[in-house]
This record gives sequence, C-alpha cells and structure tokens, in this order.
Amino acid sequence: MKPIVSIIMGSTSDLPVMEKACKLLDEMQIPFEVNALSAHRTPDAVEAFAAGAKERGLKVIIAAAGMAAALPGVIAASTTLPVIGVPIKGMLDGLDAMLSIIQMPPGIPVATVGVNGAQNAAILAVEMLALSDEAIAKRLADYKAGLKAKIEKANRDLAEVKYEYKTN
Amino acid sequence: MKPIVSIIMGSTSDLPVMEKACKLLDEMQIPFEVNALSAHRTPDAVEAFAAGAKERGLKVIIAAAGMAAALPGVIAASTTLPVIGVPIKGMLDGLDAMLSIIQMPPGIPVATVGVNGAQNAAILAVEMLALSDEAIAKRLADYKAGLKAKIEKANRDLAEVKYEYKTN
Amino acid sequence: MKPIVSIIMGSTSDLPVMEKACKLLDEMQIPFEVNALSAHRTPDAVEAFAAGAKERGLKVIIAAAGMAAALPGVIAASTTLPVIGVPIKGMLDGLDAMLSIIQMPPGIPVATVGVNGAQNAAILAVEMLALSDEAIAKRLADYKAGLKAKIEKANRDLAEVKYEYKTN
Amino acid sequence: MKPIVSIIMGSTSDLPVMEKACKLLDEMQIPFEVNALSAHRTPDAVEAFAAGAKERGLKVIIAAAGMAAALPGVIAASTTLPVIGVPIKGMLDGLDAMLSIIQMPPGIPVATVGVNGAQNAAILAVEMLALSDEAIAKRLADYKAGLKAKIEKANRDLAEVKYEYKTN
Amino acid sequence: MKPIVSIIMGSTSDLPVMEKACKLLDEMQIPFEVNALSAHRTPDAVEAFAAGAKERGLKVIIAAAGMAAALPGVIAASTTLPVIGVPIKGMLDGLDAMLSIIQMPPGIPVATVGVNGAQNAAILAVEMLALSDEAIAKRLADYKAGLKAKIEKANRDLAEVKYEYKTN
Amino acid sequence: MKPIVSIIMGSTSDLPVMEKACKLLDEMQIPFEVNALSAHRTPDAVEAFAAGAKERGLKVIIAAAGMAAALPGVIAASTTLPVIGVPIKGMLDGLDAMLSIIQMPPGIPVATVGVNGAQNAAILAVEMLALSDEAIAKRLADYKAGLKAKIEKANRDLAEVKYEYKTN
Amino acid sequence: MKPIVSIIMGSTSDLPVMEKACKLLDEMQIPFEVNALSAHRTPDAVEAFAAGAKERGLKVIIAAAGMAAALPGVIAASTTLPVIGVPIKGMLDGLDAMLSIIQMPPGIPVATVGVNGAQNAAILAVEMLALSDEAIAKRLADYKAGLKAKIEKANRDLAEVKYEYKTN
Amino acid sequence: MKPIVSIIMGSTSDLPVMEKACKLLDEMQIPFEVNALSAHRTPDAVEAFAAGAKERGLKVIIAAAGMAAALPGVIAASTTLPVIGVPIKGMLDGLDAMLSIIQMPPGIPVATVGVNGAQNAAILAVEMLALSDEAIAKRLADYKAGLKAKIEKANRDLAEVKYEYKTN
Repeated sequence: MKPIVSIIMGSTSDLPVMEKACKLLDEMQIPFEVNALSAHRTPDAVEAFAAGAKERGLKVIIAAAGMAAALPGVIAASTTLPVIGVPIKGMLDGLDAMLSIIQMPPGIPVATVGVNGAQNAAILAVEMLALSDEAIAKRLADYKAGLKAKIEKANRDLAEVKYEYKTN
Repeated sequence: MKPIVSIIMGSTSDLPVMEKACKLLDEMQIPFEVNALSAHRTPDAVEAFAAGAKERGLKVIIAAAGMAAALPGVIAASTTLPVIGVPIKGMLDGLDAMLSIIQMPPGIPVATVGVNGAQNAAILAVEMLALSDEAIAKRLADYKAGLKAKIEKANRDLAEVKYEYKTN
Repeated sequence: MKPIVSIIMGSTSDLPVMEKACKLLDEMQIPFEVNALSAHRTPDAVEAFAAGAKERGLKVIIAAAGMAAALPGVIAASTTLPVIGVPIKGMLDGLDAMLSIIQMPPGIPVATVGVNGAQNAAILAVEMLALSDEAIAKRLADYKAGLKAKIEKANRDLAEVKYEYKTN
Repeated sequence: MKPIVSIIMGSTSDLPVMEKACKLLDEMQIPFEVNALSAHRTPDAVEAFAAGAKERGLKVIIAAAGMAAALPGVIAASTTLPVIGVPIKGMLDGLDAMLSIIQMPPGIPVATVGVNGAQNAAILAVEMLALSDEAIAKRLADYKAGLKAKIEKANRDLAEVKYEYKTN
Repeated sequence: MKPIVSIIMGSTSDLPVMEKACKLLDEMQIPFEVNALSAHRTPDAVEAFAAGAKERGLKVIIAAAGMAAALPGVIAASTTLPVIGVPIKGMLDGLDAMLSIIQMPPGIPVATVGVNGAQNAAILAVEMLALSDEAIAKRLADYKAGLKAKIEKANRDLAEVKYEYKTN
Repeated sequence: MKPIVSIIMGSTSDLPVMEKACKLLDEMQIPFEVNALSAHRTPDAVEAFAAGAKERGLKVIIAAAGMAAALPGVIAASTTLPVIGVPIKGMLDGLDAMLSIIQMPPGIPVATVGVNGAQNAAILAVEMLALSDEAIAKRLADYKAGLKAKIEKANRDLAEVKYEYKTN
Repeated sequence: MKPIVSIIMGSTSDLPVMEKACKLLDEMQIPFEVNALSAHRTPDAVEAFAAGAKERGLKVIIAAAGMAAALPGVIAASTTLPVIGVPIKGMLDGLDAMLSIIQMPPGIPVATVGVNGAQNAAILAVEMLALSDEAIAKRLADYKAGLKAKIEKANRDLAEVKYEYKTN
Repeated sequence: MKPIVSIIMGSTSDLPVMEKACKLLDEMQIPFEVNALSAHRTPDAVEAFAAGAKERGLKVIIAAAGMAAALPGVIAASTTLPVIGVPIKGMLDGLDAMLSIIQMPPGIPVATVGVNGAQNAAILAVEMLALSDEAIAKRLADYKAGLKAKIEKANRDLAEVKYEYKTN
C-alpha cells in the first residue's frame, strides 16, 4: 500500500529512537515510509521531498532531528501537510533540539512532541488521520482504552506489593 | 455553523494572545468556539468538555495555558481528537508552560507550538482539517503563498533602504 | 487501620523512588495506601479518587509524577486536602516535572518538594498530621533528633579520618 | 486572638508580594502575624523564632525569600511545624530562589509553592489547618467553590465576546 | 561595486539589530548587500541564494535569525562559503536562537557570534577577507587600535571621576 | 593614601553597578582605585596591571565584567593576590557572566559574588583585609551590627503596618 | 610545510575531542600545528602566541576550552586573524564554556561552533582558507559532496531495513 | 598546630570532593580542620561554630554544600571572617547549589568557586592568608609557577604526538 505517513530522520543514528514510531504505526495498520534526509547535508532532497509530499499521497510527516534541528521546520516550509517534530536527545539534554523545532515563526507551525517522543509523534499522526477515517478512529480508541487498562492493572499489582511496607 | 475547532484557554487573561488564533480561523472561514476552562479550577467542566468533544462534531482542540499548564494534557487524556497546546508566556519566560505541555507520557501526545504561538496553533489546526477538505486546503495554500509574497516585498523594500549605509 | 495518607504515583516505574516515602510513613506508624493513577491515562479514576478522598478519611495526599507532571495539580483541583507534589527525575533532570508541579495558578496550591524528594514528602505529611495528633508529634520530634545525632556522629568519625591529610 | 500562622519574609521589600497571603488569611479569618527576619542578617532571631514557634501556639509558618533564599530551610531546621516556602522573583526570574528553597536535604522538607506564590502559600496553610478545624474547612470549601464560579462566569462573558471574530 | 559580503536576515524586524553590521562594513569600505530571506517562508529563494552565492562573487555570508533560527544552517548547507550566524534576541532571551544556530551537525559549521552580535559578525567577516587583502587588513588593524584607544580614554576619564567616592 | 584595593571594570558602562563597591570601601575608609581595563580590548594593560599589582602595594582586586566575562580570570592568572569577580547583568540575566567568571580551572580561583553584587564584593575585600588589620576588623563588625539593626527596625515597622490586613 | 592553521587547547585533556579537527585538516592537506596553552596558567605564552601569530604565517586559529573558557577570547584580543572557538563539554553540559566563548563584547568576535564541535571548527577554517586558494576550495567542495553521498547511502540502507516494521 | 582554616561540609558524602582542598592545604603547610555540620540538621552547632570561629583563631572558612546549599551563607551570617563556598554537584548539575550559595543578599558575601571546586577554594584561602604571611606567599608563588611548568611540559609532549595526524 502507498504510504500516507512519512517518517524522516536527520541521521540514521536516530533510528533506535524512531523505531517506536514505526511500531506504533504498524500496530495501527497505517502504511508508512522511513527515510533519512538532512536539512544540512541533503537540502535539495529535503526540498524535493517536502514539495512533492502531498502529490505522492502523503497525509502527515513526522520529522526527527537533534541539536540544531532544522529539518522539521524546513519541511514545514515547503508543504501544507501537518509536520510533527521530534526533538532527539543529544548534548544539551535535547533542549537545543526542542527549541530549534518548536519556536517557529508565525505562519509555519511544527507540531512538536517531547524529547525522544517518537511514539507520541506516531499517535498524533494517527489522531489526525482518524479525523476522516472511521476504521483508524476505531483502532485509536481501542489503543487508548488499552493504555487505561494497563495502568489499572499496574495499580492492582501495586495493591499486592504495598503491604510489605505497612505494618500497622 | 457548528464549530469544528474549539479554542480553550486556562484563563481569560490569555485572550489577548489567543485572539491571533481566532483571527486566523476566521480568515480561513473555519467555524470555531472559544471557552475558558481550567484544569485546576473547573476540572469537571474540562473532563465533560473533552469527553463530549468528538460527539459535538469538533475536529481539533487548541488549548492554551501558562505556568504549570496541565490543561492541554488533561484534555488530551479524555479525547481521541488531536490537541494542540499553546504555552503562554508568564513568570519563567514561558519555559515552565512549554515543558508542562510538551513532555507528555507515551500514549497521550499534545502537538505543542512555540511560546505564545496562537497563530501557529490555528494554522496547524487548519492543516489537519485540510487533509479531508479541499476547500480548506485551497485557502491554506493561498495563505502560505501570501506569506511568501509578504517577505519578498519586504526584501524589495529593503533594497531601497540599504543604500544609506553603503557609500562604495 | 484505615489509611490517612495516600501515595499516588503517575507510573509504577516511580515506585523505586517512592519507596522511601512508604518506609518513612511506616516508621512513623502512619497508615497509608499506595496507588498508581495517571492524570493522562486514567483521568476519571484520578477525579474520582480526589473527589472522594476526604470522605474516605484521608488527610494528606502525596502525588509523584515525572515529565509533564499534571497529576499533583489535577488532584489538588478536586479536593481541599493538602496535596504534596514530588517531581520525578526524567529526561530534563527533573526540572520539567518540578516546574509542571510547582507553578500552580492562584487558588490551587501544591506543596512541592525537591526532585525525587519522596522521603521529604512523607515527613511533610507527618508534620501536617502532627498538628492535631500528639503521638505523631512525639515520633516526629524523635525522628528529627535522630537526624541531628547522625550528623554529629559523622562529624566525630570525620575527626578520626582527617589526620591522614594533615602533616603539620 | 493569638496568631496560628506566621508569615516571615527575608526583607520588607517582599511585602508587596506577600500582601496577598495576608489578605487570604484575613478573608479566611485565620489569626496571623507578619515579621521580617533574615537568615543572613538576623540569624539569632530566626533561630529563636523557629525554636519557639510551636510553644507560642503557631501551627504553620510561611517563609518568603529571594535570591539565595535560605530562610525557609533554616526555619524548617529548628521546628517540627510545617514550613511553606515562597520563592520571590528577583535577578534570575526567581529560579535561584526556587532552587534554594525546594532542593532540601532528606529530613528537612520545605513545602514550596511557585514564584511569588503568596496567595497559594496562604491557601496551603489553610488546607493544613482545615485538617482539624471544621469551621476553617467549611470556609476553604466555600472559597474553592467561588474560584470555580469565577471562571464559569468568565467563560460566559467570553461567549458574548467571541462572535466579533467569527463571520461564518 | 559588486558586493562581497551578503547580510541576510530572516525578517525585516531584525534590521534595527543588523544595522550595526551594515555600519561596520561601510566603515571598512567592504561592498555588501542586505536581504530578507526566510528559511521557513521563502525556502526556494534561500536555496537559490546560497547555491549561487559563490558564483556571484560573494565571499562571506552573515545570516541573522531569531527563535527556531534555521536560516544560517540552511544557507551553510548549500554553499562552501563561510557563513556567520547572528542569534536575534526574542522570547527566550535569544538562547533558543543561539542553540538553533550553533549546534550544527558535523560537516556544516556556522560561525556563531553572541546574541544580537551584529557588529561582531561584520568584524569577523572583515577578518576573513583580510586574510587575502592587505588594504582590508590595514583598516582592520586600525579599527582594533581604535578600540584600545577608546577604552584607554575611558579609563583616563574614570580617573577624574573616581575621587568623588574617595575621602581618604 | 596608596590604594590597597583595586576595582577594575571591563567597561565604563559597568560604573553605575560598581559605584556601590566604591561607596562601601569609602565608608570603611579603605583606600582604593577604580579603572576600566578590558581583557579583550586592552590585554597588555590588563597583563601589566595584574603582574604589577602586588608590588604596587595592592592587597585585593575586584574585577567586574559582563557577558563572556574573561577579565577576573585573566587577572587571577597573573597575580597571587585574591581576585573577586562580579558578574554584570546583561543579555542572559547575567548567567553568562556568572559562569564565565566562576567556572575557573584548578589552580586559578576567582572569588565570585552574585549578579551585580558590587557591594558584597567590597565587603568580601574588607573581610580579607580585616584578617590582619584590627582597625578594619572593628569597622567591619560595626557595619554588620548595623545591618542587623536595620532589619530589626524594619520588623518593628512591619508590626505597625500589619494590622490593616487583620480583622480578627 | 609551515602551518597556516593553529589548534590551541586549554588543556591536554581536550585532545580526544580536538583530534577530529586534526584529522579533518590532515585530510584537507592543510599544514597545521597543535599546542596546549592556557589563558589562566600560561597567560604570557598565550599573549606571545596571539601577538606573533600573523607574522609567523598563520591564517586561522582554532581555540578550544572548557568551563570558564577565556582562551578563544583572549587570543582574539591580540590578533586580527579570525579565531574559531570550540566549547568543550564539562560540568554544565558545555553551556558554561559556550557562553564564555560566544558572548564577546563588540569589537572582538570569536567564531563559535557547537559543544565539542572540533570537526566543524576545522571545516570552518578550511572555508576561510578556501576564499583565496582554489586547490583548497576544490577539496572542500569534494568533501561536502561526500557528506551528501553518505546520507544518501544511509537512506538507501534504511529502505532495506524498514520493511520489518511494516506489515501492510 | 592550631587550625587557621576550617573546612565544613554539609554531609560526609561531600568528603571525596573536598579531599582536594585538604590535600592542597596540607601541601601548603596550612593547619586546618575538617568538620561535617549541616545548616538544616545541626543549626545550633553551625551557629556556635560560626560565632566562635574568629575567637578560636580561625582565619578563613571553606563551606561546601549541595542542593539547597544554605550552609555557606548561614555561616557567613554569624562571622566576619571570609567564607568561601563550594557548590557540590548533585541532581541539577550543581546549578542549584551554585545559585543557593552565590546569590547572597547585600551585606553578607560568600566567595563562591565553581561546581566541585574544592581545590580552588583551598587556593583562594591560601591567597587570603598570604596577604599577611610572607612564608605562605612564597609557597603560593611556587605553586603557581609549578602549574605553568606543568602545562608547558604538556605542550612539549603534544609537540611529539601531533605528527601522527600530519602528513604534509
């Protein structure tokens, strides 16, 4: 199937972080593609990618980058598709990447998630797609219900554990 | 017309910032509503709002808050609609609000924009809506072309000005 | 015995940090309970917990969370009991959690302790309970005297050690 | 009436900020006192104050300080009463005061509120007092209900305003 | 004369800051041009500018931008000319812009100066040009000698002033 | 009288801040001198000053600088006299200057005071001089007693004021 | 051959970081020298080095330092050659060194690169040299083309890998 | 011999850092003592120590503490001896301790050194003592000369190493 989400990372060293986005999209049965493109090393390819993204049938772009993370903003500059930015943790705890991605000028937003927030970036993409696709909306609702069940179970497990601290 | 975007702010004192979001949505002919709800003062109303948002026909929620800005995340917790978070500048230059909004746990993303980024939040909402509405997509493309024209004109104006510095 | 302090954590992964609060309360013979509830994954449960806390006989709530730590503030929003917040160290050295917890809007305070300050959160709870319970007040005074004795002994031990540096 | 809350500030220049705490306590009919004492200029007086606080009938201490804000911690060192710390905004946006107050060593907690959070400090004190005083508990519940009413009214006002942005 | 230095700013609102660079270059008799181009609003123009810069006879590029300041890095990506980056002070004291400009990936440096450091950016450009142009080198040496003279005079003036403090 | 304290500032624009150091030294009857020298504009003069300071009879050097504040450290490099560094508030709230001054390598300390802490720098100098001069030690003790008296008076004044808040 | 680039580091412990600069210059066939000089331990040597750099035939100076990193600025103070500063990561994530190097006063720029950015410092030096040396310019262009090829290959490799995530 | 320098640390866990101060003082033949005293756990002992320090013959106090590091300031409050503060690295990279120590109110300075700067604290103490003791002044001058020799040797060693990078 033709991909509707594109995951772009500034460097292949970001792959271990971005795998969580791949897994989530896969689990949600969203066709996606993964590419390494750099705003600083392959600017033409980034430009061509962004300019052609909508025509190729893409709906949402997830762009991950560290340090002076220009990639998400540069892609956003050449497309009208929503761009989700993932700051990758590096030298300065990822704060450099976060500020480089989020503080966009008026007119060109990037939907930024937390440091190394690959999974959340994918869920955000799914939320956008679910706006006009009931099947995806259904899977998303199931996924969110699952999260709730997981912490409820954790709480029940905790209930067993806790007595070891409590003598009264 | 029934609103499809909802702008929520934690305090009416955020209105001067959020007006830019209103203006942009108005300009893009997106029906929207504006409300003040607080995760800390009216938690029930926030919960009820979030839980009922999809059924009321809303598509995207823009939530603005300052300081310990829990509002966007708490809304995201009770809806599968995409939630866009706007950190409002306050005591600590808005960094407190930015971190409170963006650093969400896995499973519950908030699409965060820059400090006081109301206009960008609205454009991001429009980008999401444009995924399944060609009329909106057209207006968005026109808007982005307008931005380009504006800076191109600024550059031409600069060309006139600059000679006063340059004697050679 | 019915718990009068409730320890809530946003994720069971916070348990190794929060165990110090459990141990302290146990040592002080304060009946307590431990639960995992998430402002972002189980908002209804958080709301129900907070709204019913006082009626259940709870006196103080200790809420721990990391990253965009909304839990303490959201609980404080639905109860008049004092809420103590513990920022859990994560990606940004715990500064994200600290700011998310402490910078509350007027009207809804959270008594915030230092990063990973589980033990201090428990002592703070004990100090509040001691206001109207002489037995607890007595145990608290003994505990504080013990701290003093411990550092006085450390100082005496240091007195032995120090001569290895000092030849004059 | 004998004061049960004591507001201590490191410098009389903190008074404009701390007035909000005075007003709140007054509104809640809590007898209180206000003093200026400095951990760095009048250490003996601080020590004497803290050591004698409980015997004088005080229940809660609110201590405000800016910059290298040692006052709250030093008071906490010599009393078993709960101490609430208020970081006062100064040179470094109040972050210096916040860290100086909140990052206490194990054993000596300070219940820290946000930068310039005088009003919240007072509410927190009231919450502690309400644990064993039903009349105070009643006033606190009324106060919190009033906050909710205020933002609900703000929302209704917003509903009038918003149509000026909206032409569709 | 054909410009050999190009000053690019992300927005015409940066002009009041960048005027100091213009004045310095003018004083040093370096032919230069000034343009407003935005990595986020006119990416094609930036790309075209950078790719053609060397052929047009430019030697050094000074690029100024605020917030998520991608401009200097994106220009550096498409030219082998040295690019000097000027972070413009905005929301977060210019730290967002500084990190966005300086933290470049290996292979694509940007020579970054301090926040609002327009004058220093121009001097740095002159230093680079002086490497192969003796006339420019001479003017630069004179300029630096002038700086020294200025502070030496300031010191002499101070010598007059100081006695008003000094009674002994 | 021959100066025994030397106040050096990186720029005459630092004078309004440093005047407090002058006044304090004057009040303590310490002969001092004031100079503007820059580690970056007049390095030879700084070097000559530092190397000759001890021989000229100076005892303590107070060096103030903002931004990339190299002056105190560079002076410390060429003298064995104690050097007190004063970070001057500038672009980044003075944090840049503070870190530039305080984070010295092993072997070359600078005794750093708070941002714009001119008065404290002077008191610190007086404390060092008082180690071997009983007359100065006496004046210092009187000065510190005065501080205490001042805040005690402030507290008494506060006692008058406070009743306006207190109706009970 | 006589060196035209000089690499200075504040401490030999910086060598593992600065080796990347050495390798790049070697690869580009630029004759260079490496020295350890400290603004705080050997100020005379730094001064002598900087003052004589141009006469010795040097064209560009790369200066690396950590913590209160005065070295690059102090060298810049005594030469008209361009000075490139490399902040070395230490206690405070390298932010202390970055601010100490970049925030130079008007008149004395340092071309600062990212934390531990040794390789970029060397490339920047090559870019400056390439302005007046066609052979170097050619090697630089080849190097930059190589970077592009490397990430394009990484992208092709990614294309193979990605299918393991994708089941649709 | 009677100690003239006193090293105080807030916790015996600071000993591994503070050992460098001990070694330096030992090497300089300065009689010193080491104690653990806590502003928060043994406030009376701190008060007694500070108030009696001068009478016991102490000349300089070095106080080390981490987190909300009140110790140096509290000691400075009760003595006219110079107090040197050493911020100990902990949770927040030592920035919390640095700000807690350095940002003292007017009148009560603490001579602060860098994070974990124990050795520099000791050298600073020696510099103060050397003002009135020629024997100490001589040892200090020798020590500083040794530092210079060490880096000069490092530079000569570097000269051997460097050729492996350099083929031209």
